[in-house]
Amino acid sequence: MFGLIPKNLDFFEFFDRAANNILKGARVLGELVEDGDIEEKAKLITEIEHDGDRITHDTVRMLNQTFVTPIDREDIHGLITALDDVIDFIDAFVIRVHLYKIKEFPAAARELAHILLKSAEETVRAISCLEKMDSTIHHICIELNSLENEADRISRAAIAKLFEEEKDPLTVIKWKELYETLELASDKFEDVANILEGIILKHA
Amino acid sequence: MFGLIPKNLDFFEFFDRAANNILKGARVLGELVEDGDIEEKAKLITEIEHDGDRITHDTVRMLNQTFVTPIDREDIHGLITALDDVIDFIDAFVIRVHLYKIKEFPAAARELAHILLKSAEETVRAISCLEKMDSTIHHICIELNSLENEADRISRAAIAKLFEEEKDPLTVIKWKELYETLELASDKFEDVANILEGIILKHA
Amino acid sequence: MFGLIPKNLDFFEFFDRAANNILKGARVLGELVEDGDIEEKAKLITEIEHDGDRITHDTVRMLNQTFVTPIDREDIHGLITALDDVIDFIDAFVIRVHLYKIKEFPAAARELAHILLKSAEETVRAISCLEKMDSTIHHICIELNSLENEADRISRAAIAKLFEEEKDPLTVIKWKELYETLELASDKFEDVANILEGIILKHA
Repeated sequence: MFGLIPKNLDFFEFFDRAANNILKGARVLGELVEDGDIEEKAKLITEIEHDGDRITHDTVRMLNQTFVTPIDREDIHGLITALDDVIDFIDAFVIRVHLYKIKEFPAAARELAHILLKSAEETVRAISCLEKMDSTIHHICIELNSLENEADRISRAAIAKLFEEEKDPLTVIKWKELYETLELASDKFEDVANILEGIILKHA
Repeated sequence: MFGLIPKNLDFFEFFDRAANNILKGARVLGELVEDGDIEEKAKLITEIEHDGDRITHDTVRMLNQTFVTPIDREDIHGLITALDDVIDFIDAFVIRVHLYKIKEFPAAARELAHILLKSAEETVRAISCLEKMDSTIHHICIELNSLENEADRISRAAIAKLFEEEKDPLTVIKWKELYETLELASDKFEDVANILEGIILKHA
Repeated sequence: MFGLIPKNLDFFEFFDRAANNILKGARVLGELVEDGDIEEKAKLITEIEHDGDRITHDTVRMLNQTFVTPIDREDIHGLITALDDVIDFIDAFVIRVHLYKIKEFPAAARELAHILLKSAEETVRAISCLEKMDSTIHHICIELNSLENEADRISRAAIAKLFEEEKDPLTVIKWKELYETLELASDKFEDVANILEGIILKHA
């Protein structure tokens, strides 16, 4: 359960791993909603989610064993948790796709998956600027916020349409939850952005 | 993005602004559920929610730049976040009213809005006692707790009635969520009360 | 509101009380889903939930008044909150049982209640090892994690079956929420396990 932490890993490398793990997950999610082959892609995302758990676990473990940290302890904990939440919600979406035997994805689901992919790319970029406390992060955070607003807009419009056009209540229940789960993943990217901004500000 | 913080503002003034912003929102909510004119009131609440975001952002920013704080850092953060959550849930209610094209409000929704208004008034009062660490806060917190219990009771009774009397499942889904969202706003007032009690206790 | 804290109580005794209170609640839950007599058992669980609130309140109060704590302040707060969340979700389940006028429980609900009971027993055992920082806790935490995975599996299978076999959408809405609430109680046991692991690790 408690494997050895590779000696040469620091917190910034953990964040980098977590962000790249999300990017990997967001790419597979994009393939799942575009090309189908749901069964295989879903299995892959569950593995990626497990990898995320391990990265989070190792980071928290290192935090508990480190006396002096390069950035505030609460920010390290907050950041790795928010990164973990993103991949958790992507996995939660895929679990529900399986549960509800979804075979096809409407345009809104594909658009939301695309926004998550873009958010993942921006997050990898932001994290890579963190160690140098590069102020570019501010601009990336603004972009992450605007991607979250876009996800919000798409998800709300899709749910409104569902209530207006869909006759089967069970389909409404399923898709309402599916859209909301993708939207929550997007919210978590915004949390990541807010924590990054806070860190940069303290070190300004 | 990071405007100048007015120099003469301290944390207590930020809390006061946040509480009065909620009161403003709760008043507009009361008008929305009573008099209709939903479109215009909803727009107003969204603006008030944005103002709340700005107050929270500025408070967190000042917290990050302040070395010695008048009350514990985690309490400042917890309090401003809980205040922000109240107005977020009021806004979430209004967003769903729009999404689900709600045109009329049952008695239970009006009663819940009324409880939120009373809670907002009590919160403004409690916050105004905070700087002097006035023990009146205890009594206000008891009142906030009892308002939350009342909201709980109303919301549960309304949902039970919905499942018994409403034939259309989509209407059940919509109103269940609407009642729960108002109830969550009320929960957040209780969080505010708990944090205030903790602060008073530490300074007793 | 602020009764005297018994002088001879320390934090470990508070944790012990909270864990045993959960165990009491989980036993009554087991009886409720097995033998019926819902009305009386539900009343009992609400009382147990109130007891939990009082234990949490007293713990937080003592934390606020204690300068040097035997384990990190944030861990004390996190642990007592997670323990409180468990009994809150058990109570939330019972509230919904009452609200939705549930009279009979399918096998999956009984299995989930049984897992919660086993998790409560393990939690009492883990807490009793805490003061001595006994490394047995690791093994108990692994067991709590595997119980949570089992609860996850059962709850998901039950929800999938619901969507496939149940014709009445309102019954789907009710039971989906009931299963999810039991699953959330199980999640909170996992949170307890994670916090315990963190504490043990810091003191290793």
